[in-house]
Amino acid sequence: MRVSKVNSGPGMTVTAKPDNDTGSPAAPARTHTIDAFHQGRFFLVQCADAGHRAGMDAMLLAATIAEGARGRLADLGAGAGAAGLAAASRLSGLEVVLVERAPAMLECARRTLALEQNAALAARASLIDADVGLRGNERIAAGLENSAYDFVIMNPPFNAADDRQTPDPLKAEAHAMDGADLFERWLRTASAMLKPGGQVSIIARPQSISDIIASLGRRFGGAEITPVSPRAGDDAIRILVTAIKGSRARLVLRDRIVIHQGEGRDFSPLMHDLANGLADWPRRG
Amino acid sequence: MRVSKVNSGPGMTVTAKPDNDTGSPAAPARTHTIDAFHQGRFFLVQCADAGHRAGMDAMLLAATIAEGARGRLADLGAGAGAAGLAAASRLSGLEVVLVERAPAMLECARRTLALEQNAALAARASLIDADVGLRGNERIAAGLENSAYDFVIMNPPFNAADDRQTPDPLKAEAHAMDGADLFERWLRTASAMLKPGGQVSIIARPQSISDIIASLGRRFGGAEITPVSPRAGDDAIRILVTAIKGSRARLVLRDRIVIHQGEGRDFSPLMHDLANGLADWPRRG
Repeated sequence: MRVSKVNSGPGMTVTAKPDNDTGSPAAPARTHTIDAFHQGRFFLVQCADAGHRAGMDAMLLAATIAEGARGRLADLGAGAGAAGLAAASRLSGLEVVLVERAPAMLECARRTLALEQNAALAARASLIDADVGLRGNERIAAGLENSAYDFVIMNPPFNAADDRQTPDPLKAEAHAMDGADLFERWLRTASAMLKPGGQVSIIARPQSISDIIASLGRRFGGAEITPVSPRAGDDAIRILVTAIKGSRARLVLRDRIVIHQGEGRDFSPLMHDLANGLADWPRRG
Repeated sequence: MRVSKVNSGPGMTVTAKPDNDTGSPAAPARTHTIDAFHQGRFFLVQCADAGHRAGMDAMLLAATIAEGARGRLADLGAGAGAAGLAAASRLSGLEVVLVERAPAMLECARRTLALEQNAALAARASLIDADVGLRGNERIAAGLENSAYDFVIMNPPFNAADDRQTPDPLKAEAHAMDGADLFERWLRTASAMLKPGGQVSIIARPQSISDIIASLGRRFGGAEITPVSPRAGDDAIRILVTAIKGSRARLVLRDRIVIHQGEGRDFSPLMHDLANGLADWPRRG
């Protein structure tokens, strides 16, 4: 496997390259790509034609970890590891754990951590094969310790009824909402894993806003919600939510992040910097 | 009583004038003002020193009724009638019912409808003395008919723990949250009063977003939420929510309305027009 092209752009566009590496015993039949993020400061191995492909969502999620942050971060439902590794790439004081259950994604994450180009990053990253929805002792047995993390980030699988359907079962798993209680289960796990005062970060669709606030419940407070819109004047396509374990502070609705400037496909200066690990989107509170 | 000064500005600033009218048998002891809204196109009688004073919130709420709208509108918790009368002032095809339970506010609303300057408007407006939280037959007996309205608007009393406290009991009533189920009770009433397909509009604080969505529940769909922020980059201080009775459409988070432009107290052009009844803020869907 080699990097076909370093995409030093905003980290959203990925390069596709047939994966002819047959040397590894675990090499899957699927075609993989190696994609550059953060202007070539780290790389991801991803399925070329199937599965969730990392992009803007993962970069925005990573941006919620404030400049200067240190400690342990868990990326729940990490996929190939984009969000967790983006946080670790920007913040040298972070140790990250990628949590994923889908075998094909786990394989991508394993290959990602094994990449020569990621050697420095991989020293601060590890992988846990576990279902985020596990409870109590089962969760702990799977390696998800209680009260052990400073940050938990999540880009949960979601799917809305009017989304285009895909025949790809791997992609379907990544995008499928596991019932209406997904946020309840994922935030219960996040709360258990976080130290008191730890921060959870979530990227989701606007229609999940009520489920998310309800599931933050009494576990978390100080929710800060940032809408993310394609252009000024547009409806939001994502919300970026952070909250603090045990806080009683009230909810804040922040000004939106606008992705594109003008009529073309150019990023706004803020989005460019967030997508490339050159800026953070820290909490107000 | 006479108008001390016509404020033809944005409808937020009000003029205070001692009320020396002692001719009316119902004249209360409090000092009243007559305040111009919509650049002098209608007027409100309000308590000068006590009670909720109408302003930007009421004007934004009225702006959610789209240009060209016709039919019956109920303003729940109408206070002196600002929001309902602002809608009627802009839309000549609307008949409005102001619903209020606080005697002092009812008195203001009565005096408002009796003002010579409001004669044309008052022909399309009426007043119901009722508690919005009434249920079933009690609500109907109080004059709030089922399935009889095209629009219901509400600016419910709210109060957050960190709001500055006021010793004024009338103001305290207007700002007091009647327990956590306020939105549940008010939206139950709104749903009962609306025709199928009718629109509810709410202005509230951002921290109420979850209570509102939960209370819209299965009664309403197609919720559209617009944050309202003092300036670009600021957190929202209000949310403007509309939804449709019986709709199954999903929630939309719209771009924010910015109140002030630049550093001073000047309104943004959009806010100026919304506050003065010169523009609407119609639904997308």
